[in-house]
Amino acid sequence: MADFEEPIERLIEYFRSLPGVGKKTAQRYAFYIIENNKEKAENFAKAIVDAKEKVKLCKECGNYSASEVCPICQRRNKQIICVVQEPKDIISMEKVKSFDGVYHVLFGCINPLENKGPNDIRIKELLARVSTNDVKEVIMATNPDVEGEATAMYVAKLLRPMGVKVTRLAQGIAMGSDIEFADEITLSKAIADRKEI
Amino acid sequence: MADFEEPIERLIEYFRSLPGVGKKTAQRYAFYIIENNKEKAENFAKAIVDAKEKVKLCKECGNYSASEVCPICQRRNKQIICVVQEPKDIISMEKVKSFDGVYHVLFGCINPLENKGPNDIRIKELLARVSTNDVKEVIMATNPDVEGEATAMYVAKLLRPMGVKVTRLAQGIAMGSDIEFADEITLSKAIADRKEI
Repeated sequence: MADFEEPIERLIEYFRSLPGVGKKTAQRYAFYIIENNKEKAENFAKAIVDAKEKVKLCKECGNYSASEVCPICQRRNKQIICVVQEPKDIISMEKVKSFDGVYHVLFGCINPLENKGPNDIRIKELLARVSTNDVKEVIMATNPDVEGEATAMYVAKLLRPMGVKVTRLAQGIAMGSDIEFADEITLSKAIADRKEI
Repeated sequence: MADFEEPIERLIEYFRSLPGVGKKTAQRYAFYIIENNKEKAENFAKAIVDAKEKVKLCKECGNYSASEVCPICQRRNKQIICVVQEPKDIISMEKVKSFDGVYHVLFGCINPLENKGPNDIRIKELLARVSTNDVKEVIMATNPDVEGEATAMYVAKLLRPMGVKVTRLAQGIAMGSDIEFADEITLSKAIADRKEI
């Protein structure tokens, strides 16, 4: 038996469908909606519909955007493209502030276990961008795991013949971390890529 | 500067207003909406508006209900009233299954620090219920903290002259817990209320 009557139960179910939300959390969210005023609920609902309706993919980089070309692609240096797996990776990159190039979202990486091949992610769009624009460097910022590495290598192999410099984010021990707790793979990578100081 | 364009940022802000939701979590929720289909977004929005519009307080117990009188008040034994602070406490109580009485939601407890006096919670509604119905017992299930205790004592003092039995949930060490880790107040309560076996 459902714990609540239909309108509450239905709202709880929708909140539960959000990533990482369990039953208790969904209940808290639903109660919050019910306890707040009607205007807030209506605006919340409108925000959901608006975001879904108005947000499309930027036709250049593939990031979520309310305009045809996203603000980053409109303003920044197009000679450097940073390739990421997901739109949320751009948020992290943007926090750094020092990067003034543009992005390219692959929407995933090559992952045979999930049946994701090179044609299932936005690789050909990247090649098209590089071939039609005066791109000097492509920074591969895919995740430092097996699939992310493989994708970076695969894309690099396709780009190099086009005369573009392809780089990869440095890998090694994280700043502020502790060598004692660093895993072997990270540590071996840090040793192999050691720099003279 | 906002990390996102207006429709995304606005949706993130609404998700952030939910209890316990931070920036990162709100972003994940917003991206989930954007990544899913339009129908789902519209139904989600509708669920929010519907819940807010249709859910009122049950005119008897004060719990959230889509009907004038909630399903619990419609069906169950009205001679026993269990008094709780919040609607969500009813969910926990209902899991027990052994209770077949009805509830009364106070919506808070007497809390001078938050300027909440006896008239700010639903005490007079409780007195009205007890005086007009044939109530045999009122179980005070307010929280076992200072405010909850004080509220239970206050309400009990008002109810006793009306000839109704007032009880309080037993307090003591939690089942499955460890005496080693029990706090002093709980333990002293458990000793004071010890039972012959």
